Amino acid sequence: MQGWFLQSPKLLSDKHRDKAAAWQLQLTKPAGSLGRLETLAIELAAMQHKLHPQVQKVDICVFAADQGVCAEGVSAFPQSVTRQMIANFVGGGAAISVLAKSLEANLSVVNLGTVLESVSHASIFDRTIAPQSGNIVNQPAMTEAQLQTALMQGKEALTRAKKSGCELFIAGEMGIGNTTTATAILVKLLHLPVSDLVGPGTGLNAKGMAHKVEVIERALARHADAILPMDILRCLGGFEIAALVGSYIAAAQAGIPVLVDGFICTTAALLACRVNPGVERWLILAHASAEPGHKAAVQALNKEPLLDFQLRLGEASGAALAVPLLRLACDLHNNMATFAEAGVADKT
Amino acid sequence: MQGWFLQSPKLLSDKHRDKAAAWQLQLTKPAGSLGRLETLAIELAAMQHKLHPQVQKVDICVFAADQGVCAEGVSAFPQSVTRQMIANFVGGGAAISVLAKSLEANLSVVNLGTVLESVSHASIFDRTIAPQSGNIVNQPAMTEAQLQTALMQGKEALTRAKKSGCELFIAGEMGIGNTTTATAILVKLLHLPVSDLVGPGTGLNAKGMAHKVEVIERALARHADAILPMDILRCLGGFEIAALVGSYIAAAQAGIPVLVDGFICTTAALLACRVNPGVERWLILAHASAEPGHKAAVQALNKEPLLDFQLRLGEASGAALAVPLLRLACDLHNNMATFAEAGVADKT
Repeated sequence: MQGWFLQSPKLLSDKHRDKAAAWQLQLTKPAGSLGRLETLAIELAAMQHKLHPQVQKVDICVFAADQGVCAEGVSAFPQSVTRQMIANFVGGGAAISVLAKSLEANLSVVNLGTVLESVSHASIFDRTIAPQSGNIVNQPAMTEAQLQTALMQGKEALTRAKKSGCELFIAGEMGIGNTTTATAILVKLLHLPVSDLVGPGTGLNAKGMAHKVEVIERALARHADAILPMDILRCLGGFEIAALVGSYIAAAQAGIPVLVDGFICTTAALLACRVNPGVERWLILAHASAEPGHKAAVQALNKEPLLDFQLRLGEASGAALAVPLLRLACDLHNNMATFAEAGVADKT
Repeated sequence: MQGWFLQSPKLLSDKHRDKAAAWQLQLTKPAGSLGRLETLAIELAAMQHKLHPQVQKVDICVFAADQGVCAEGVSAFPQSVTRQMIANFVGGGAAISVLAKSLEANLSVVNLGTVLESVSHASIFDRTIAPQSGNIVNQPAMTEAQLQTALMQGKEALTRAKKSGCELFIAGEMGIGNTTTATAILVKLLHLPVSDLVGPGTGLNAKGMAHKVEVIERALARHADAILPMDILRCLGGFEIAALVGSYIAAAQAGIPVLVDGFICTTAALLACRVNPGVERWLILAHASAEPGHKAAVQALNKEPLLDFQLRLGEASGAALAVPLLRLACDLHNNMATFAEAGVADKT
């Protein structure tokens, strides 16, 4: 296997990590008393190769696509909602629209293929691959060519973000039925029982959940020979999950810190790390999702999410919620006085 | 016992809670998928008696005072730091100064008594009661008159905040040695062993911690007959802890939501609730502090902190950090589109 996605991520700067850690010790507070705010600022310094990191310029890109597996009746919402929510994202009414506006973050949508026709709007990139991915119960989600296109769309979204001066990249997703595809991928990556990882998604009841387990089991049986991460993604993913994977790898290669949203994004991030292990160091997990499988994905990445607000919406909403925490970590790191400047006595 | 602090807090509005909950169900997201952001907005609606709550106008008041118990050598920092940090707060260099500026929150300091002379500044209210509280090992921290004055200073700070249109009140504290006094109070309130609740404060080592336990044990023995919450506060508190208690009760009486900071503030909040149980409904716990005793205080209040960032600084820093989470909860609640407005299909 060859491809742009195997190229090494940018290295973090140990020099700037050490400098930032030493700087923290001079600020007017007991050493370590700002906890994770200190470690976040120090890690961002290492990522951005500068003593004083900044995450003012935030780019949020939501990858949207329909899932063929919706034909199996795996979601509480009709498939038309994917396309309706795309319009809502740019119309300003969705959760991520409100959050992006409040955060003064740039929000764009990449439509990789919806059953209903794409909306025309300056912030929507119509990159339709097909009206929907293949129904994973019967066929691969994507052809090899479709997979490559979807990955590349993730990379191109990152390139656009970089051009606009992005200091922190957030990807989100929208696709009715995509907790089913993401769960199938996660089962493959972690070798855990489907029933341990499956969740209600947008709001299935117990009967709906049992059916979802059965559908995922059938998909897994159909694609038992998919072993390599990229094959798992091609057979069981959706276009939007492939674009997430591409965007995370591209962000790591470009040296842009990534704030990872919930269940589907973390599953994509885990797959990205399996494809290209150096990606892991560029990821900050925003929140612990209420979707049951998220915990397993988080544990596999061996990282601690910043928030636990019991969110299960997607759209990058949980990642957006964590942005102010990173910004305030940088503000404290960059703007607090040192003991010497403030004339405050240090520890006796 | 009589006093202003026994008057009932304002009632929350069940009507507005119900309306806000019904409103959340109309917004373009699966029901409940915004987790704590939904429950926070709904609870703020009940507190503010309006369907669309706001927490843009935030008032942060740091109560500062020196502790007589510092004579026993219970802190890693010299006592002069209390007064030096007051200057740093208004000089813009402290953590809370940076946070308040980033959040566009109003920041003031009430100096209730420091060993070094108070600083003159428009944002510092010099309300010196005495240069420091009594050394609790030998004597009560305060006389009854001093306690009443300190409580009233808390109330007056709240009155100032209310006059400026405050929608969310945050109190903070500064006082070298005040994890010792707060721990002594908490032991009295919870009947737990000192060694379970004591922590390193600003950075004691194991030997310093053992000494701190011994000092607290002596103080508790000296004040064994203090049983009622206000007596516990008078005998073992500091001026700033009494002012915190007064401010929390006054906020509840005025109907202003309170975001509670870490160990010392939560201990003061617990004491306020013991004095006047209705206060409890006006409190939102901002974060789980790294100071060991905080967990017990949180459990006693039976509330879940919003953040766990391993902070242990005080100054209201942890509460300030949580402000954007409340603001974004309100933004989402107030500005998201309904299913009808956005033309999005609801759950099938």
